Amino acid sequence: MTDGVKRLLLGKKLPSSELSETLLPKRIALPVFASDALSSVAYAPDEIILTLSLAGMAALTFSWWVGILVAVVMLVVVASYRQNVREYPSGGGNYEVATVNLGPNAGLTVASALMVDYVLTVAVSVSSGVQNAKAALPFLIGHEGWVAATIIAVLMAINLRGVRESGTVFAIPTYAFMLGVLVMIGYGLLRVVVLGEHLASPTSQYEVVGDPRYQQFTGVLMMFLLARAFSSGCAALTGVEAISNGVPAFRKPKSRNAATTLLLLGTIAVSMLLGIIALANLTGVRVLDDSGGAYFTLNGVRQDVHVDTVMGQLAGTVFSDFRPGFYFVVATTMVILFLAANTAFNGFPVLGAILARDGFLPRQLHTRGDRLAFSNGIVMLAVSAIALALAFNADVTKLIQLYVVGVFVSFTLSQLGMLRHWGRHLKTETDPRECSRMQRSRIINAVGLTMTATVLIVILIAKFTHGAWMAILAMTVVFAVMKGINRHYRAVARETAWSPGVKRTLPSRVHAVVVVSQLNRPTLRAVMFAKGTRPSTIEAITVSVDPEETERVVAQWQAADLGVPLRVIASPYREVVGPVVTYVRDLRKTSPRDVVSVYVPELVVGHWWESVLHNQTGLILRTRLHFAPGVMVTSVPYLLKSSEVAIDRLEREDPLAYRLIGTAPTDHEGALRDD
Amino acid sequence: MTDGVKRLLLGKKLPSSELSETLLPKRIALPVFASDALSSVAYAPDEIILTLSLAGMAALTFSWWVGILVAVVMLVVVASYRQNVREYPSGGGNYEVATVNLGPNAGLTVASALMVDYVLTVAVSVSSGVQNAKAALPFLIGHEGWVAATIIAVLMAINLRGVRESGTVFAIPTYAFMLGVLVMIGYGLLRVVVLGEHLASPTSQYEVVGDPRYQQFTGVLMMFLLARAFSSGCAALTGVEAISNGVPAFRKPKSRNAATTLLLLGTIAVSMLLGIIALANLTGVRVLDDSGGAYFTLNGVRQDVHVDTVMGQLAGTVFSDFRPGFYFVVATTMVILFLAANTAFNGFPVLGAILARDGFLPRQLHTRGDRLAFSNGIVMLAVSAIALALAFNADVTKLIQLYVVGVFVSFTLSQLGMLRHWGRHLKTETDPRECSRMQRSRIINAVGLTMTATVLIVILIAKFTHGAWMAILAMTVVFAVMKGINRHYRAVARETAWSPGVKRTLPSRVHAVVVVSQLNRPTLRAVMFAKGTRPSTIEAITVSVDPEETERVVAQWQAADLGVPLRVIASPYREVVGPVVTYVRDLRKTSPRDVVSVYVPELVVGHWWESVLHNQTGLILRTRLHFAPGVMVTSVPYLLKSSEVAIDRLEREDPLAYRLIGTAPTDHEGALRDD
Repeated sequence: MTDGVKRLLLGKKLPSSELSETLLPKRIALPVFASDALSSVAYAPDEIILTLSLAGMAALTFSWWVGILVAVVMLVVVASYRQNVREYPSGGGNYEVATVNLGPNAGLTVASALMVDYVLTVAVSVSSGVQNAKAALPFLIGHEGWVAATIIAVLMAINLRGVRESGTVFAIPTYAFMLGVLVMIGYGLLRVVVLGEHLASPTSQYEVVGDPRYQQFTGVLMMFLLARAFSSGCAALTGVEAISNGVPAFRKPKSRNAATTLLLLGTIAVSMLLGIIALANLTGVRVLDDSGGAYFTLNGVRQDVHVDTVMGQLAGTVFSDFRPGFYFVVATTMVILFLAANTAFNGFPVLGAILARDGFLPRQLHTRGDRLAFSNGIVMLAVSAIALALAFNADVTKLIQLYVVGVFVSFTLSQLGMLRHWGRHLKTETDPRECSRMQRSRIINAVGLTMTATVLIVILIAKFTHGAWMAILAMTVVFAVMKGINRHYRAVARETAWSPGVKRTLPSRVHAVVVVSQLNRPTLRAVMFAKGTRPSTIEAITVSVDPEETERVVAQWQAADLGVPLRVIASPYREVVGPVVTYVRDLRKTSPRDVVSVYVPELVVGHWWESVLHNQTGLILRTRLHFAPGVMVTSVPYLLKSSEVAIDRLEREDPLAYRLIGTAPTDHEGALRDD
Repeated sequence: MTDGVKRLLLGKKLPSSELSETLLPKRIALPVFASDALSSVAYAPDEIILTLSLAGMAALTFSWWVGILVAVVMLVVVASYRQNVREYPSGGGNYEVATVNLGPNAGLTVASALMVDYVLTVAVSVSSGVQNAKAALPFLIGHEGWVAATIIAVLMAINLRGVRESGTVFAIPTYAFMLGVLVMIGYGLLRVVVLGEHLASPTSQYEVVGDPRYQQFTGVLMMFLLARAFSSGCAALTGVEAISNGVPAFRKPKSRNAATTLLLLGTIAVSMLLGIIALANLTGVRVLDDSGGAYFTLNGVRQDVHVDTVMGQLAGTVFSDFRPGFYFVVATTMVILFLAANTAFNGFPVLGAILARDGFLPRQLHTRGDRLAFSNGIVMLAVSAIALALAFNADVTKLIQLYVVGVFVSFTLSQLGMLRHWGRHLKTETDPRECSRMQRSRIINAVGLTMTATVLIVILIAKFTHGAWMAILAMTVVFAVMKGINRHYRAVARETAWSPGVKRTLPSRVHAVVVVSQLNRPTLRAVMFAKGTRPSTIEAITVSVDPEETERVVAQWQAADLGVPLRVIASPYREVVGPVVTYVRDLRKTSPRDVVSVYVPELVVGHWWESVLHNQTGLILRTRLHFAPGVMVTSVPYLLKSSEVAIDRLEREDPLAYRLIGTAPTDHEGALRDD
């Protein structure tokens, strides 16, 4: 895309000096990093209830217990993560904790799990947002997949602008959502409990007939269904780790602020979750997993009706006497769900950069783009999320099945890591007060570990066949790929490692070879440059494809008398590249300690379509000659007038880069100049 | 595709020395170049009859006259082309004739027309082949487009093997087809005329009710419909020019042989065409343009039945008492139609190469691939034909509407050219016998011109709205593009033209700049090579993206003490490329008569996926530095072990190229060496 458009979309560049400015105060950090965890209360209750409804009315009453269980797990996890944040403020988060305490493989496992879940977070949140939007905008029905994809693309653009803008952009709606939901819950409970009104949700009239397979709602089957409901409900916990990965983005004191934000988040999320489930029970909200076998009946007659999300139904019911309230809640829910995806857009690139730094991902991911955000990672995330949204046509209930597994893998491993961590420090620690603090923390993490490990097992059992296997497969693949990349980088590093012992052989002689197709200014320039480097020997070579053509070149060459001999190479196959490569390789073979320096004249043109018409041969020649040892390939550019267009464009693209040189510090120079 | 597969599909390479071996004797040249013109008798009659049937039964009787008219045009065109072949044996064909006698624009018009028609030939022939195949293989119905596309792809592969193989491959079926059709006609006429049997085609029972628009089959409307039928029938003439373009592929005496082959082709084609139309009338064959408003009735009741092609119906009727004969004719018809497309595969690339030579198409089209066929052109043709076949779902009647226009444009222009040609020569010619010959020839061409011009006008009037406009549009576009390419090449040639006057300034000094990201063996090699070229000044530069990283490099550098100063360049935007480019440009600005030579260490890896992990920055750097005047970019390759894989592969790909050097003639050397 052209510079103008790019800037328009991504805003102006920020130099490092402004990096500190992008640090977040708590009031901004909360919405930026917590929108995921908060927004999940918009779909977690739905998933709990619709899973239970597979067993018909009887099961629905259990939503209470499932909800409370989820809340408890949430609080425990938050409590233990406050320890992580304090002890590992560098933003490595679970990955760092696991790597440091359990070794690289554990770390990499966590990393793979997180990466997969970041992608799922984006896909699930945006999809749920679209599902909610359908209540207000029915014309979306049928195009969920593409709508979700578009929204993800927009989020990508916003995030390529950098984290700070997104902070301010996302603060208002997040707070609006909290306000809306909490007021809704409060007002709802007021009307029902205090004023004793009878509030009935639009779906409360229906009877739920369960899936025949779950008709016997007893014993193992019941346990299993409850487990599934619980696992889906645990989606509410995702996003907690986002804060621990984002610590560096907090204002000082980073750890403290992060920990406080985490606690804040936990409390709000839990109260929302329980509040909504409470209201849902009081107003008799019903939802169905339409992929399951359950259905509605009214006076025994089967009903096939479109039901809104729990949030939508509650808002409608509670604010039955105050329409604006309904619209406010639905709108903010929709928005926050889109913004929740942003959490991943903040977390994923940071993780990607850390992994790239450690050599598990391509180096490009480490170097930042011309905004402070890690552009490459952002794009990578967006693309995979879009693919997922399209593949599942933005069906939340289906996506949820893949979800959560990764989060709990990383939860569990990082808690295990923390235990080790405390163990190590307790050995060395002498100060009794510190010791007792560590003891406390260790207990917290131990509880956290037990809890998360149990949940992980439950999830694996309950969800494996329902889609968790896909998530696990994806993680394994990601793990393997990163492992492979790392192995490759390490091998290359070993192979190319510098050591004082490496012998520094100066090439004894340099043979310059100028590749000539015809005698024109670019060729002349190449010859002159080659001569300018004063090589030991210099010659021009031309490949004879078309005899007359060759004769002409030879004649011209003789006339021109450039003081450089021209060698004609036969080519029975009318190939140009092959013969040149062979000739150069043989030249080198005859004198191994020498260097052959091949000069290729190149036309520099301005438009892409021009380059289709030029330099094709030169291009192939360069790539092929790369494989000839001891051969340097020098392209000597000849700028055509049209190239000015391109130069102007490049200068417009980063005008600052071209003024840099003034500001370049030369401090190392004095120390190193030795001529 | 890997070498093995490539060789398997395309066969072993042929050196130029074998070029002569690929020359064609008449008996091979006929099938190779005439299959197009011959095969068209398989659909030309259908098109004549189904066009006429739009006006109901009454009109059908006119098929006779239309057929004869087409035959006459055919013979005239053949006669005049025999002159072209004699006078222009170089294979430029119509293009050359027009260019030489009427100037480049006329030539380019012919070229555009021919290119478009070559594509159409492939599309029409293969489509018609598929339509015929449907009679025998009904399961093809519904997938015509894709089947046609696949067959075109196969033809491409065959032709990439080179013209000679295709010659032998295509001879047998072509002769089989001729035999089959001629025997069918002979036997049919024998049964009807001599034995006086009553042969009735399966469709003869139907009454044709014409399109209401043509109910009044009188006056202008009738003329118009006849004109359309005639135009479609003229499809039988396509392919005549193929021979005149293919003269160089004939054995000596090229012109004579080509002329004879042309006459042979003409006679056979005409007799087939008339024979088929005669039989069609005698056996009462009916076909319908299902896109038109005409339909069949039986005893007044409308019938919607699938009807076979004329050829199919005739074969069935004539060989009613000898089934094998039917299968033979249908099968060979099907095959020859596919092979007809091969004519274009022979003609198009030759034309493309000639145009590339004259600078109207990208140069790549001029250099042959490693088979003697012009690979690039072949691929270009196949791709466009496939696109067309898919777009029209291989519907012959629709495609025919675009067809023929181009052929007659080039017919007309080349005949006009021939007139000029004779005019010129008659002025200079003194020998009376030669003069009278020329006079004769000129008359022939004059008749040819009148005829083809008239037909062209008829076609344009009759077909324009039915699709001819698309063909004309395509030609205009092709013309404009080629004109543009030529203008570009000429401009570049002017801009880069060599002249003894061009001043040969040797760069006064060479500044070597080694780009360093870290200190390792590749870097060391780059430094050593750079030193080896003994530049006026040498320094290494590294861009400071990550302070710690930079510190480490600096420390290592000091320790290594390579005798080359290291300059650290600040990069507030964490960009690597921008600062380097700026620095180099400024270096150059300070001393314009000097040359800056930038050395970029590069890792040479073996697998594509490895190169994703390396050299990304180097790549961007090279492209960007190209736009800095007076800067040479030298990449210093460091071969990793894995690169050996790639080297082996390359050597396998053209083993001969690596043995070439022995055979390289060094005759020019002595003359030119002057050191």
